[in-house]
Amino acid sequence: MIGLEDIQDARWRIAPHIRKTPLLPYAHTSTGEDFGGSVTLKLELLQAAGSFKGRGAMNRLLTLSAEQLKAGVVTASGGNHGLAIARSAHVLGAKAKIFLPSNVVADKVAKLKKWGADVEIVGAVWDDANAAALAHAQKTGATYAHPFSDPVVVAGQGTLGLDILDEMPEVDVILVAIGGGGLITGLSTAVKALRPKTRIIGIEPYGSPTLHACLAAGKLVTLDKLETRVATMSCRQTDQAIYEAAARNVDEIVLVSDEEMEAAARSLWFEFGLAADLSGAAAVAALQSKRFVPEPGSKVCALVCGAGTDGTGA
Amino acid sequence: MIGLEDIQDARWRIAPHIRKTPLLPYAHTSTGEDFGGSVTLKLELLQAAGSFKGRGAMNRLLTLSAEQLKAGVVTASGGNHGLAIARSAHVLGAKAKIFLPSNVVADKVAKLKKWGADVEIVGAVWDDANAAALAHAQKTGATYAHPFSDPVVVAGQGTLGLDILDEMPEVDVILVAIGGGGLITGLSTAVKALRPKTRIIGIEPYGSPTLHACLAAGKLVTLDKLETRVATMSCRQTDQAIYEAAARNVDEIVLVSDEEMEAAARSLWFEFGLAADLSGAAAVAALQSKRFVPEPGSKVCALVCGAGTDGTGA
Repeated sequence: MIGLEDIQDARWRIAPHIRKTPLLPYAHTSTGEDFGGSVTLKLELLQAAGSFKGRGAMNRLLTLSAEQLKAGVVTASGGNHGLAIARSAHVLGAKAKIFLPSNVVADKVAKLKKWGADVEIVGAVWDDANAAALAHAQKTGATYAHPFSDPVVVAGQGTLGLDILDEMPEVDVILVAIGGGGLITGLSTAVKALRPKTRIIGIEPYGSPTLHACLAAGKLVTLDKLETRVATMSCRQTDQAIYEAAARNVDEIVLVSDEEMEAAARSLWFEFGLAADLSGAAAVAALQSKRFVPEPGSKVCALVCGAGTDGTGA
Repeated sequence: MIGLEDIQDARWRIAPHIRKTPLLPYAHTSTGEDFGGSVTLKLELLQAAGSFKGRGAMNRLLTLSAEQLKAGVVTASGGNHGLAIARSAHVLGAKAKIFLPSNVVADKVAKLKKWGADVEIVGAVWDDANAAALAHAQKTGATYAHPFSDPVVVAGQGTLGLDILDEMPEVDVILVAIGGGGLITGLSTAVKALRPKTRIIGIEPYGSPTLHACLAAGKLVTLDKLETRVATMSCRQTDQAIYEAAARNVDEIVLVSDEEMEAAARSLWFEFGLAADLSGAAAVAALQSKRFVPEPGSKVCALVCGAGTDGTGA
């Protein structure tokens, strides 16, 4: 789908518009959990527009011509990709139209409007909103920016892998939440090219095991139903190139329940003052639930990939 | 009140129990504010128990004897100092009793209970809750830990000044929210001893100009009334030693309105995914309201000192 060079190119392209988000050791908690290895949180929820999605969206928009930018951009998103497109469009002076499914978190709709996007809610799940976005693109000439299967977006998300290797050059394991699979594809492509022995562990909800089901079947599959309330991790089907890259680069996919993500989000708020959304809490949920147990002494990076107050319990 | 050595001692004492909180440049915002200098946020809201108060509280409890610890600790706090005492007591296996005024944020009461503290709400403002805490200490033999006028607590808060100088050795200005004055006293003592030309700017609410009034009068004064809804920055009177240290070390005190702090908190949430409480947003409020304008090219550290969801607008 993409290679290391695409990601390195993306990194230089987006650098002026993207934050270098900090790391925070997972320590000094009330429960004193010992996960087996030393865990460091990568605070990508502090990224501009609230998640890693700002990377791919910015790379997408920066590769458009001035004429294309003038015609605007359109996408469908459970929240974070939409925010990232809206923010990137704002920065570059373009118009953004965002279609959302009805299970989006209200706070994110308010933020989208604050970034100046035109917002429309269509259907119950992402696929419905996406059909509307595609129709809008065809009708208006706006550029459609797919949230995960666009190689330019995937290359942008992959820059997060380069950043993590710079900041934690000895990292043994990286835990990554999966929605459609764009982040884990980009990130794992970068990391496996530069440090093949680092393990890449994906996290999916039990109610939306998109890539887990593909890897089990040995081919691209479509889920019959989605049974998670986590909009940013709901996806019936990824695409062929994402599946193939995941089969090559992802070492394991761990499934967690919505309740485990909720508990992890509450815990991140209580212990660290971090307001993560539920996908942002997924990597920590995998550790706290012991669904992923690091080897003793290993260095683990748990990606906290998106912000939200839905998990604070406040 | 205290000297640099007290703060250096405190730093070694509390180091095993305290986080090194990250910095984040104030950049890539939707509005592209130019404050005049380059502003870096010190994310002390990610400190254990949600604020800088964890430093002073831990220093206080670590200087108690085993016998004193066994008799428990008691304090009165608008929230953050109470949380810090509760967390320090939890870490050291001691009992904590926390008296609170009724204007405390509900989320903080829930957190106190989660740290295992015994919580009691007494009176409308801090002074009422404090009288109850003092009476409790006298009756039970528990150690009373004053939120700001205890030199051991002040030395603990001062460690934040040492951390900032380590991380931003060229810092020209540090913006610090003031409640009772313990943080700014400790921090400014450390910074002025090591780098006298760094300016220390305090921030108080218009409705509780505790130290501003003292500096204007040239003596310790008691405010007639408190007219801010920010519990963590409400204080009728600081103490003589705090006033004297502030008169010596604080370069300027800037007043901000509750509304300006609310706007700053909403902005920290929208722009950075940071859920700061209103005192945590005070330093940013001083910049955004232009009540403090840095010199062009100067390096500014804006302390985001406490976590809370009351400012997110979510």
